[in-house]
Amino acid sequence: MEFASIPEIDTPALVIDLDAHERNLRRVADYFAARPCDLRPHVKTHKCSTIARRQVEMGAIGVTCAKVGEAEAMADGGITSILIANQVTAASKIQRLAALAGRCELMVALDDVNNARAIGQAATQAGTTVGVLVEIDTGMRRCGLAPDPAQAVAFAKAVLPVDGLRFRGLMGYEGHTVMIEDDAERRAKASEAGRQLGACAQAVRDAGIDVQIVSGGGTGTYDISGDSGVFTEIQAGSYVFMDARYHGIQPELETALFMVSTVVSLARGDLVTLDCGMKSLTHEFGQPPVVSPSGLGPVGLSEEHGRCAIEGGTCDLKLGDQVWLLPTHCCTTANLHDRYWCVRDGRLVGTWAIDARGRFD
Amino acid sequence: MEFASIPEIDTPALVIDLDAHERNLRRVADYFAARPCDLRPHVKTHKCSTIARRQVEMGAIGVTCAKVGEAEAMADGGITSILIANQVTAASKIQRLAALAGRCELMVALDDVNNARAIGQAATQAGTTVGVLVEIDTGMRRCGLAPDPAQAVAFAKAVLPVDGLRFRGLMGYEGHTVMIEDDAERRAKASEAGRQLGACAQAVRDAGIDVQIVSGGGTGTYDISGDSGVFTEIQAGSYVFMDARYHGIQPELETALFMVSTVVSLARGDLVTLDCGMKSLTHEFGQPPVVSPSGLGPVGLSEEHGRCAIEGGTCDLKLGDQVWLLPTHCCTTANLHDRYWCVRDGRLVGTWAIDARGRFD
Repeated sequence: MEFASIPEIDTPALVIDLDAHERNLRRVADYFAARPCDLRPHVKTHKCSTIARRQVEMGAIGVTCAKVGEAEAMADGGITSILIANQVTAASKIQRLAALAGRCELMVALDDVNNARAIGQAATQAGTTVGVLVEIDTGMRRCGLAPDPAQAVAFAKAVLPVDGLRFRGLMGYEGHTVMIEDDAERRAKASEAGRQLGACAQAVRDAGIDVQIVSGGGTGTYDISGDSGVFTEIQAGSYVFMDARYHGIQPELETALFMVSTVVSLARGDLVTLDCGMKSLTHEFGQPPVVSPSGLGPVGLSEEHGRCAIEGGTCDLKLGDQVWLLPTHCCTTANLHDRYWCVRDGRLVGTWAIDARGRFD
Repeated sequence: MEFASIPEIDTPALVIDLDAHERNLRRVADYFAARPCDLRPHVKTHKCSTIARRQVEMGAIGVTCAKVGEAEAMADGGITSILIANQVTAASKIQRLAALAGRCELMVALDDVNNARAIGQAATQAGTTVGVLVEIDTGMRRCGLAPDPAQAVAFAKAVLPVDGLRFRGLMGYEGHTVMIEDDAERRAKASEAGRQLGACAQAVRDAGIDVQIVSGGGTGTYDISGDSGVFTEIQAGSYVFMDARYHGIQPELETALFMVSTVVSLARGDLVTLDCGMKSLTHEFGQPPVVSPSGLGPVGLSEEHGRCAIEGGTCDLKLGDQVWLLPTHCCTTANLHDRYWCVRDGRLVGTWAIDARGRFD
């Protein structure tokens, strides 16, 4: 990847290195093609139906979404199998969920029986069926039932007879483990989360209930959970782009998403001021580093400005030059933008709409 | 303000309490109506031409923008006098700047003579004139010339003869002082920044150059800089909404912007899980507090989830109920959304497009 200035790119811009991106798609697709476990990639990372279609063309069985709006955008973009890996509880969103189930194979996570009944009622009224996965909290401490096999069985039995629902299986996202940098520790903790989920799934099977799906996994654990024998599908999302943080955890996957910014001020001799700030680049996982040119420190962000210290005291940059940075959190950074600028061989070859961002809350 | 659930609001939603918002508009408009200093409010906070027009109708002389895209959106929305309080250096953006100057009274900040010449050349080619303010760095350490009167005079003299430009005055934003909580310290530091800017402006005047505009000021300092005698106009923006942080600094202005979220999980007994996360609410200035109902701790955010501890051990909330939170940074939170939901007397009365967000980078 060259990091030369591309004047056609209107900064601050999110740029995809298509070659690196496609190698990531291929590497993860090949991993799952060789195993009895499927890939249902999470689109929260890219929010882009163009990328989702490419993932499905390369073997993904559908997509995972975080919310109804993302799922609607993916259905609009031609995706036919969608898991909303989250609870949907507002009355207006339950109506949208039931309607969407008429347009694609749709599944949603559950951890409350009354919520299950409300979704079933809306689906019945809409003449649709919503697939459901019982969510198990394997350590994220966010949503989901406690990892108690007896409770999982009781919940599955309560959901099974609800009209408008189709019980499909269980879900448990080991998100508390995906960013652990130490390989052995990440493997141990992800394996323990998988063991808890697997015990719940086995108990439900032992109760005579058909468990077709056990879903979970992230980019930091796709190769741990994918090999565990517990999961039927893995929800990894960030692998398409990676970022400064995830690249340290899974170095076989390449950084493929960059923030391209423009130098707006050199009036202070000790720093370079850029046109990227908190409104175009996130920093909750650390200050984004500069990848080109060399000699600049990581960027400090205010709303619409980024400031990089000039290391070594001198700098060849001119006003209007472009500086390439590596996001530290690809998912929240993509959420700030409406399009990707796609680059191959140092040239702009097109843009892709981030069509699941925004208008769908 | 009541904080009852409003089912028509599709969460996570940014809600404006119109009564409080309008009292803020009136209070600040009245302040400037009584003084020889104007209000040119910064639209980076709301990014909404509807609100900008209301500000102008109540006496603002125009608006301040952070970038070309915001300025284009404001011109599209009928605003006729616009300051881009920032450097514009990319060739494509300089072209847009020159074109925009044909549609409104447009000014831009400068701290580089070559940049001045590039803008002047583009304006001349477009048959327009761009107004310019020399930016002085009064302590933000971001953009702008050092606060040296001789340097300001030399710069103004270099810019004056450039075709396509019209020298209008100076700008210096005392952003490093606006959030200082101690009143006396904030007053002292803002006054010192104003003194530096005033000395530069006086030197330029003493050189026989017409200084029509001295611009700066924020919500935390509008009543300090506005009374200083240095500034001809103040750029305060956050006063329209306020947030948890600014309300502590200027308590006479009311919190008027809320995040309304929905309870999505109560499966864990010790916390409430909401549908607002880092993709709908920012937290760089601290965890947003809950304003209603009582008994919940501040929200901890992951991408699409918020988690609040249940204080005292019990909670009457049900799945689907709405929880109202107070953003800790209104500007970056608004940047995540495409519309405001406007509420008066506990009822939804309309929505306003956040039309300067997004498509204009």
